[in-house]
Amino acid sequence: MTNKQLEKLKELGNDIIKDIDKNKNPSIDVPIRTLANVQFNQKTKKLELGKKSAKRFFFNVGHAKKFLQTLAVASVSKELLGLDKNAHLRDVFYSIKRTIPNTDVNIVDEQSESDKAIEDLELISDLSREQLHITANKAGSVVGSVVIEDDGDIIDWSKLGSGGWSIPSTVEKVKFKKVNAKFVLYMEKAGTWERLREDRFWEKQKCIIVSSHGQTTRGIRRLLQRLNQEHNLPIYVLADFDPWGFYIYSVLKFGSINLAHASETMALPKAKFLGITADDIEKYNLKKHFIKMKEIDFTRLKQIMNYEWFKNNKEWQRQFKLMNSYKAKVEIQSLSSRGITFISEKYLPEKIKEAKFLD
Amino acid sequence: MTNKQLEKLKELGNDIIKDIDKNKNPSIDVPIRTLANVQFNQKTKKLELGKKSAKRFFFNVGHAKKFLQTLAVASVSKELLGLDKNAHLRDVFYSIKRTIPNTDVNIVDEQSESDKAIEDLELISDLSREQLHITANKAGSVVGSVVIEDDGDIIDWSKLGSGGWSIPSTVEKVKFKKVNAKFVLYMEKAGTWERLREDRFWEKQKCIIVSSHGQTTRGIRRLLQRLNQEHNLPIYVLADFDPWGFYIYSVLKFGSINLAHASETMALPKAKFLGITADDIEKYNLKKHFIKMKEIDFTRLKQIMNYEWFKNNKEWQRQFKLMNSYKAKVEIQSLSSRGITFISEKYLPEKIKEAKFLD
Repeated sequence: MTNKQLEKLKELGNDIIKDIDKNKNPSIDVPIRTLANVQFNQKTKKLELGKKSAKRFFFNVGHAKKFLQTLAVASVSKELLGLDKNAHLRDVFYSIKRTIPNTDVNIVDEQSESDKAIEDLELISDLSREQLHITANKAGSVVGSVVIEDDGDIIDWSKLGSGGWSIPSTVEKVKFKKVNAKFVLYMEKAGTWERLREDRFWEKQKCIIVSSHGQTTRGIRRLLQRLNQEHNLPIYVLADFDPWGFYIYSVLKFGSINLAHASETMALPKAKFLGITADDIEKYNLKKHFIKMKEIDFTRLKQIMNYEWFKNNKEWQRQFKLMNSYKAKVEIQSLSSRGITFISEKYLPEKIKEAKFLD
Repeated sequence: MTNKQLEKLKELGNDIIKDIDKNKNPSIDVPIRTLANVQFNQKTKKLELGKKSAKRFFFNVGHAKKFLQTLAVASVSKELLGLDKNAHLRDVFYSIKRTIPNTDVNIVDEQSESDKAIEDLELISDLSREQLHITANKAGSVVGSVVIEDDGDIIDWSKLGSGGWSIPSTVEKVKFKKVNAKFVLYMEKAGTWERLREDRFWEKQKCIIVSSHGQTTRGIRRLLQRLNQEHNLPIYVLADFDPWGFYIYSVLKFGSINLAHASETMALPKAKFLGITADDIEKYNLKKHFIKMKEIDFTRLKQIMNYEWFKNNKEWQRQFKLMNSYKAKVEIQSLSSRGITFISEKYLPEKIKEAKFLD
C-alpha cells in the first residue's frame, strides 16, 4: 500500500529533476485552495475543489521559500513511508526547521508554514495527509458491536469496559472484521457518550456510538465515512440546537471550505441530524433551558442560513427561523432535567423509531 | 461499595431532620476551601486542607441558597447511587436547575454554582466526586502490558492496536488483573504518545504510557495514583521545558490549591520529572529551538520558583534560574529535529538508564 504512495512522491521529485536536466526553471503545479476555487457539487452533495491551479517556481523570489517548504515536507513524508512510521504535524515542523546553509533564513519559523506545505502536498500528490503518514492530535472514543483488526491486534469494541477504544489520528489501516450495527451515532460531547455507554444504548439499539470533544478530528471523520461507505451504515449526528451544533453537522455532511480537497475521503453526504430541534423544544418543554444567543451566534446562524446547501431546504430554514425568533439556543444535556436516563430510554429511541431526522 | 456512600448521604439528611425536629435552625458544617485553609504537609509532601470549617445555616439570607444547592446535588447523587448510574457535571446542573416554587428564583443559574456545590459536598460527605457518581469530560489514552477488568469486560491494554484504551472519567471500579510493567510514563501530548506507541516503546521498556491533551483529568490522576499505590510503580512525567510543563508536574505530584481536599486520592508524591531540562538543552543542542518566553510565562515561573515545595530544592532552583537566563522555553517535540524516533530510541532509554530524573 505504501508503495503506491512512495511512487507518487518519487514522481514529484523526478519531475523536478527533469526540469533541471532540461535547464528549465523547476516548477510544481499547485491546485488553488482559495474560496474562488471551492464549489458545492450539487450531484455529489459535497464541497469540492475546482480545477484551477498555479505553477510554483523555484527561481522566483515570491515562490522560492514555499517551493522549498513543499519539498522539505515531501522529503520527510518519503522518509516516513520508507520506515513505515507516522509523525505528528509538530514533529514534521521540527524535522524541517533548520537554517538554509550560508544564510540566516529558516526553512520554517512557525508550524503554520509546515502545515500549509503539507496541505499543498496533499493536493500536489493526490495523497491524504494520513496517506503521507502525517498525524495530528487524536481525540474521541468508540463503542459498539464491531470487531476490528489494527496493527496486528484484534479489538472488540463491545468489550472495552467504561472507556471504549481511543480513536487514533489515522484509521487507514483499520480492518473491519465484524460489524453488527444498524447505524452510527456521532456526538460532540464526551458526557453524552458516557451516558449512552453506561445505559448500554449501543447494545439495545444495535448501534455504534462515537464521540469527540467538540471538534471532530479527521480521524473520526474518516472512521465515520468508512463505516458509512464500506458497511452502508447511516450516520446520525447528535448535537445541540445551536448555530455551532448545526455547523458541526454541516461540516461532517458536506465538508468544509478549508478542507474542500479532502471531501472525497471525509464528507458524509448521507449523514442526518438527530440533535435538538425546535420541535423537541416545544414537545419536551425545554424553553426554560434557553441560553440567550450572543452576537457571534447570530453571525454564525446567518452564515449557515445562506449556505448553498441549506438555502432551499425548507425544514432547515424553518429551524433557523425559529432559532432566530427564540434568540436562544438549547443544549442536548437539558434533557437531563427530565431524568438522567431520559435521553437513552425515551428521547433517542422515539426519535429514531419515528425517523425524526433532519436531512 | 455504593452502600457506604449512600449511608453517608442519608446521614447528612438525617442530621438536618434532627435539627428540624428540635426546632433548631438546620445547618451543615462545610470545611473552608480558601487559600488560608490550604497547607503543604511536609511529611506527606502533599497540599492538604486544614481543619477550619464554617456552619452553613438554612435560615440565613446569605446562606440559604447555597444550603439548598448543596442538598439538591446531594439528592441527585443519592438517586445516582441508588440506580448505580453516573452523571456528568453538566447533567447534574440541568437536573437541579428549576425555579423554587412560588418564586422566580432558580436553584442554580450557572453550572459553576452546581460545580461548587458538588465540591462542597465532597468535603461534607468525605466522598470524592467519583464516589458521588458524578463525572466530568474524559480524556486521554493508555497502552501497556496490563490486563484490567472493568464493567464486566476483561481488557488487555497491550492488544488495542493504534488507539489504546480511552480513559474514562471514573476509574474507581477498574480492577487490575495483571500488571507487567516497571514504571508509568505520563505525557501531556497526544502526539508524543502516538510516537511511543508506534515505536512500541512501552513493550521494549516494559512500561505503561498514558497521555491526555494538555490538562490532566481527575480520571487520569486517579489511574496514575492507583498504579503507583497498588502496584508500586514509579510515575515519570514527560513534559516541556516550560513553566506550564513544570506546573503540570507540580500539580500531579503535590496536588493543587483548588483541589487540596482531593490530594488524598490524586496526588503522586513520588512522581519524578523526566521532561526536557536545561542539561538536555545543552547536551542535545536544542537552543536553536528556543521559544521566547512571554510576560505570562515569567509570571508563572516566578510563582513556581516560590512554591514551598520547590523553594529549598537546589536542582529545581537551578532549572528555574537557567530558564530565566535563557528567557526561553523548549518543547519535547524539538527532539524530532534529531530524527523522528530519537525520543524513543535514544533520549528516553538513556535518561531512564542513567536515572536522570528531577525529583
